Amino acid sequence: MKIAVLGGDGYCGWATALHLSARGHRVAIVDSLVRRQWDDDLGVQTLTPIRPLAERLRVWQDLTGNTIEFFVGDVTDYDFLSATIERIEPEAVIHFAEQRSAPFSMIDRQHAVLTQVNNVIGTLNLLFAIRELQPECHLVKLGTMGEYGTPNIDIEEGYIQIEHNGRKDVLPFPKQPGSFYHLSKVHDSHNIMFTCKVWNLRGTDLNQGVVYGTATDEVELDEALINRFDYDEIFGTVLNRFCAQAAIGHPLTIYGRGGQTRGFLDLRDTVRCVELACLHPAEPGEYRVFNQFTEQFSVRELASLVQLAGRKMGLRVAVDHLPDPRVEAEEHYYNAKHSKLMELGLKSHLLSDSLLDSLMNIAVRYRDRIDPSLILPKVNWRQARNERNQPASATAAAPVPSHGFSRDSLP
Amino acid sequence: MKIAVLGGDGYCGWATALHLSARGHRVAIVDSLVRRQWDDDLGVQTLTPIRPLAERLRVWQDLTGNTIEFFVGDVTDYDFLSATIERIEPEAVIHFAEQRSAPFSMIDRQHAVLTQVNNVIGTLNLLFAIRELQPECHLVKLGTMGEYGTPNIDIEEGYIQIEHNGRKDVLPFPKQPGSFYHLSKVHDSHNIMFTCKVWNLRGTDLNQGVVYGTATDEVELDEALINRFDYDEIFGTVLNRFCAQAAIGHPLTIYGRGGQTRGFLDLRDTVRCVELACLHPAEPGEYRVFNQFTEQFSVRELASLVQLAGRKMGLRVAVDHLPDPRVEAEEHYYNAKHSKLMELGLKSHLLSDSLLDSLMNIAVRYRDRIDPSLILPKVNWRQARNERNQPASATAAAPVPSHGFSRDSLP
Repeated sequence: MKIAVLGGDGYCGWATALHLSARGHRVAIVDSLVRRQWDDDLGVQTLTPIRPLAERLRVWQDLTGNTIEFFVGDVTDYDFLSATIERIEPEAVIHFAEQRSAPFSMIDRQHAVLTQVNNVIGTLNLLFAIRELQPECHLVKLGTMGEYGTPNIDIEEGYIQIEHNGRKDVLPFPKQPGSFYHLSKVHDSHNIMFTCKVWNLRGTDLNQGVVYGTATDEVELDEALINRFDYDEIFGTVLNRFCAQAAIGHPLTIYGRGGQTRGFLDLRDTVRCVELACLHPAEPGEYRVFNQFTEQFSVRELASLVQLAGRKMGLRVAVDHLPDPRVEAEEHYYNAKHSKLMELGLKSHLLSDSLLDSLMNIAVRYRDRIDPSLILPKVNWRQARNERNQPASATAAAPVPSHGFSRDSLP
Repeated sequence: MKIAVLGGDGYCGWATALHLSARGHRVAIVDSLVRRQWDDDLGVQTLTPIRPLAERLRVWQDLTGNTIEFFVGDVTDYDFLSATIERIEPEAVIHFAEQRSAPFSMIDRQHAVLTQVNNVIGTLNLLFAIRELQPECHLVKLGTMGEYGTPNIDIEEGYIQIEHNGRKDVLPFPKQPGSFYHLSKVHDSHNIMFTCKVWNLRGTDLNQGVVYGTATDEVELDEALINRFDYDEIFGTVLNRFCAQAAIGHPLTIYGRGGQTRGFLDLRDTVRCVELACLHPAEPGEYRVFNQFTEQFSVRELASLVQLAGRKMGLRVAVDHLPDPRVEAEEHYYNAKHSKLMELGLKSHLLSDSLLDSLMNIAVRYRDRIDPSLILPKVNWRQARNERNQPASATAAAPVPSHGFSRDSLP
């Protein structure tokens, strides 16, 4: 199958591109490489030393004989995107090419605007390009479980049957996203649902849980293929961050009471889920939603698991409760359905099996690269940085990164 | 009360600004005047000859002694917007300053992108400006009944209690918007709901039905205060368009079977609803939704009413059914609640009373200005214009209008 992976230089995108290539698909990566620049702008870096994309792909070809084409450019640039889609003629487009950090989106107005323009317009452009140039192509879009928030009822996969005043309908599941980033994904979901309906496009929205781990069979083939592993407060997902903290003897930082419960999955399941979606495409006109995670944990439970794993490795792991920088329920009901990918054949990895071999060992191996000053949360949901009457230095501290707009044209 | 009316040069905004000024509020209009330019770009014009904003305001002051300040600039320009909010120090901001036409948003990719960037970023900027400079200020935001679509259950005002698998929650009402414009309003709603929660802002979202009429007590004081009356396929709402058609002997153009049912209200009720919202502000942290309409009609019913009114004026009015250029149910259940504004004291005008005095008479008075070529639908939901490999002239036919972005910076 000819598959375009937008955002194929990123955390999930890279592992997915290699997995699909290994499975015999013809893969093309489309990426602006802006994420590497955001790291520089924010002064953070992945725990694992990732190589330039061109080098990664060269090594992959040397090892496997498989070529992955790559196109460097921004999906918010329609001329670039449409020319690229026309060249690749993909049967499936996997769209990872979004700003994917909630704290990033909450830094200040400029980061909120950047996140929503980048994500919403990138996806709109993609929908128009598919319609215009490759209307049979199946869009596989990365959403997030965070679109749903934490309702007091079971979370279904995208839709819910509602009975109300004696009448019934199946309607989109109500969304209560918790950051400007999560909001951008909700906006995307509505835009995609609409275009599937009016233009007969094929759409699969993967509402992904929190991904952990960095290894997959393909990534582990060679050090040069190593995947990113973010542990900082902006891009680090909670479990990766906990493992990095454990590795350097830093207390695990639980935000608030730690009853926040979410769906989680191993990166090795991410790549498999995405392939399953590609192999079983949505019908023309269909917009379907899969909840893509395998297990639910509270943050407190994760901390306990990491403590336990650390102990087995001879590490002493303390736990700290910080005031929650986010606005979210710290204890709540949570029961999210996730059977559709299972029905397509997903066999999931369990965290209890992966924690030592795919997380702690990586964190320990690279612990000399950890900068503890990057771990503690500085972005606060209630106190996004003000813009006017700021000393110039405060504004300069986290400039709005370039992402295909010139800085001056940012609204 | 100090009130800022963003978009105060537009159809609803102008009537609202005058109404509030007449009722003793201190009103400031903020408007980029871009809508007048869009008319020029698309080659359409209001049936009624509206005057330049400065002249309108001068006449208003001469007639009433009331000054309305005005600030010309774009809400997508944060420096302008925040400086303006700082100057006005409003107790309430009424936000009409959005691209408000569904067909406009469906012309092509550029108009879709313009609509979503303009509306979503304008509103984001406003939320940040209120938070930073005027956190007690009450945001009164114009949404649309079109956010809900046409579900097969009763439509509630913003939220619905859902019972599911034995548990209950009150959740945002599921949204099924039917154009990139309606989608932009759904995006806004989610963004506002979130900021009310995390920043304790006060928000009222007025999900307005289709507005008809052009007259209010204030607008009628002088010919120079006349309000716009759009009848063209892009900006003309259905009832205004029908009246214009009746006035020139053009058949009323029903799209499809005409069973499309919507909520409607008289412009004189719009201005009153907005004032009621201002007089009864939301609490800090509260995001509330009012469904702002007074009566439901199907398009077929409206056509019959206009035929009847035309007959009373001696006009022969035919009816034509065109293929529906939109993707929408042509027959469906529709029952939308709208009691909250009634509870605040709204006394509504009824269409049966307004049709002759506030619609047909205006259409007949200005019928020499009607250009019949502007009435028939050319924008088609299924066939948004392609962008690549177009002859230059086709692209030039409806250029993306400027709206504070330079054309080159449009993503």
